[in-house]
Amino acid sequence: MEKKVIGIDVGGTNLRGALVSADGKIINRRKTASDADRGIEAVIENLVKLIRNVSGGEHVSAVGFGIPGIIDFKEGIITQAPNICSVNNYPIRNNLRARLGDTIKVIVENDANCAAVGEWWMGAGKDAGSIVMITLGTGVGGGIVLDGKLWRGADGFGGEVGHMTIYPDGARCNCGNYGCLESYSSATAVRRMVREALAEKDSKTSLRDLIRDEEPERIPEAVMKAALDGDGAALGIWEQFGAALGIGMASLVNILNVEIIVIGGGVSAAWEMFIGKALAELKRRALRAPAERVKVMKNVLGDDSGIIGASYLALNSGREP
Amino acid sequence: MEKKVIGIDVGGTNLRGALVSADGKIINRRKTASDADRGIEAVIENLVKLIRNVSGGEHVSAVGFGIPGIIDFKEGIITQAPNICSVNNYPIRNNLRARLGDTIKVIVENDANCAAVGEWWMGAGKDAGSIVMITLGTGVGGGIVLDGKLWRGADGFGGEVGHMTIYPDGARCNCGNYGCLESYSSATAVRRMVREALAEKDSKTSLRDLIRDEEPERIPEAVMKAALDGDGAALGIWEQFGAALGIGMASLVNILNVEIIVIGGGVSAAWEMFIGKALAELKRRALRAPAERVKVMKNVLGDDSGIIGASYLALNSGREP
Repeated sequence: MEKKVIGIDVGGTNLRGALVSADGKIINRRKTASDADRGIEAVIENLVKLIRNVSGGEHVSAVGFGIPGIIDFKEGIITQAPNICSVNNYPIRNNLRARLGDTIKVIVENDANCAAVGEWWMGAGKDAGSIVMITLGTGVGGGIVLDGKLWRGADGFGGEVGHMTIYPDGARCNCGNYGCLESYSSATAVRRMVREALAEKDSKTSLRDLIRDEEPERIPEAVMKAALDGDGAALGIWEQFGAALGIGMASLVNILNVEIIVIGGGVSAAWEMFIGKALAELKRRALRAPAERVKVMKNVLGDDSGIIGASYLALNSGREP
Repeated sequence: MEKKVIGIDVGGTNLRGALVSADGKIINRRKTASDADRGIEAVIENLVKLIRNVSGGEHVSAVGFGIPGIIDFKEGIITQAPNICSVNNYPIRNNLRARLGDTIKVIVENDANCAAVGEWWMGAGKDAGSIVMITLGTGVGGGIVLDGKLWRGADGFGGEVGHMTIYPDGARCNCGNYGCLESYSSATAVRRMVREALAEKDSKTSLRDLIRDEEPERIPEAVMKAALDGDGAALGIWEQFGAALGIGMASLVNILNVEIIVIGGGVSAAWEMFIGKALAELKRRALRAPAERVKVMKNVLGDDSGIIGASYLALNSGREP
């Protein structure tokens, strides 16, 4: 009987899970609301139900969870997760095992780390030994796989590439630093740059009309539309976005000399808007050999990178330290 | 009989070698001129003589070489070494084995990578799983050890932390990029900043007199002396030096979440001049948990970091890929 596991993407709004085979194929998938507003115990109950539904009666050896937050992989604890009921030091592994039984292994990992592992295993980095994944969303996340092994760092903070300093005197980041990659190449950054463009007195941009009735999370799409129509302010925003990403990639390439950089996350949908400038900065700034070596690719597993990566970690849980 | 190896630091001026025991102790050491001006074959002959002298008749299982340049570790080739006869694609391992015989293993590695391994094995990072080494010299070199393994990258460029971009519009670096760490926190950078300080019309600095008769490589020492005497321009130079180093360390800590950053190289002698500002920037910019975790230390093996690291690689050559 082939070994099967479940990979789950734990979000503040939805929980998405899949039954995954040992060769990385999704056999069955389900999605359910997180109910995070009802507290962490409600989320745990929903996770248990999701696992029962998605397994469809099949024997499952392990479940891997990708969680947006700081995760203590070894102890199975959510150290900090602002988007999941703002829990601190929550022993999710023990609480899940109490409900699922001791025969199922529970693996917890940061969601961007899972996405990196997923893309390395079955996606854009399939044939590579080493990749850096950069996820462009509300913030900028990341994960680093070196020689086929996730680099977690000493405390699970490895791969926080969104908080590299790009412009030391740049825009304030949510983390408290100034000029982080996240302050220029995220949805939050696009919204800030829109506000700044609209505040300019002589700004003749169509952005004002375009974003008037938009939900905040749809603003990057509106800015993309404006840029496609040739709006100067919108084009300038994507230029800034791409430049910061390219400077960050150049430093990553010089530090790590990885084979592939994979870019994912919701804002990567605007790929054509920023990738030209980003690649130009990368080429201009990185050392020649590692710049020629690295391939910069869009993620290929879409929303499933994290589920597939969590499944890989679940499948290989005995083999990792 | 205890296993013994030889570690050699290959420099443009001198070759320094030591017979090293399996527990990392130096048993015997020798130094000789490189004679690099007489060509690479002369350097090879000097290396062979050095190995015979330093072994003192003892059986040696392997020799490790730390070389300033781009090294293809797997193939045993110096891809590029501007300071060693400007060789390109030189098959140093084969040429040495032709002279030393097949019973001795030959390991070649970049010198900063050797220094990182040496400090991780026997120096400042002795009790750590993961370290970044930054060497502040004419340029800025680096090496990364993760989970006790040297991270070489896909082509041996791993750890080129001197070419992280710190100030995107900053001073031009020798590598062609702008605002690299090396353009602010190296001996070359100190000399540039001195020139700029002296070019200021109203500059009332003592630097002019101090550096008049100095050799270029002794200028950082003169700037240190001036700073200790309270010279404003000199203090400003070390402030810039430390700020760039701190910004770079903050990004490294956020990307890699390592336990220790070790700082070595000739200019690290000016430690007291720059470390305060560097640590302040690190603390201000890095995420809280990895910033609290990381220890920033001066290297403890002095000039021997590279020799000890090359010896470690020689001792463990069978176990590495």
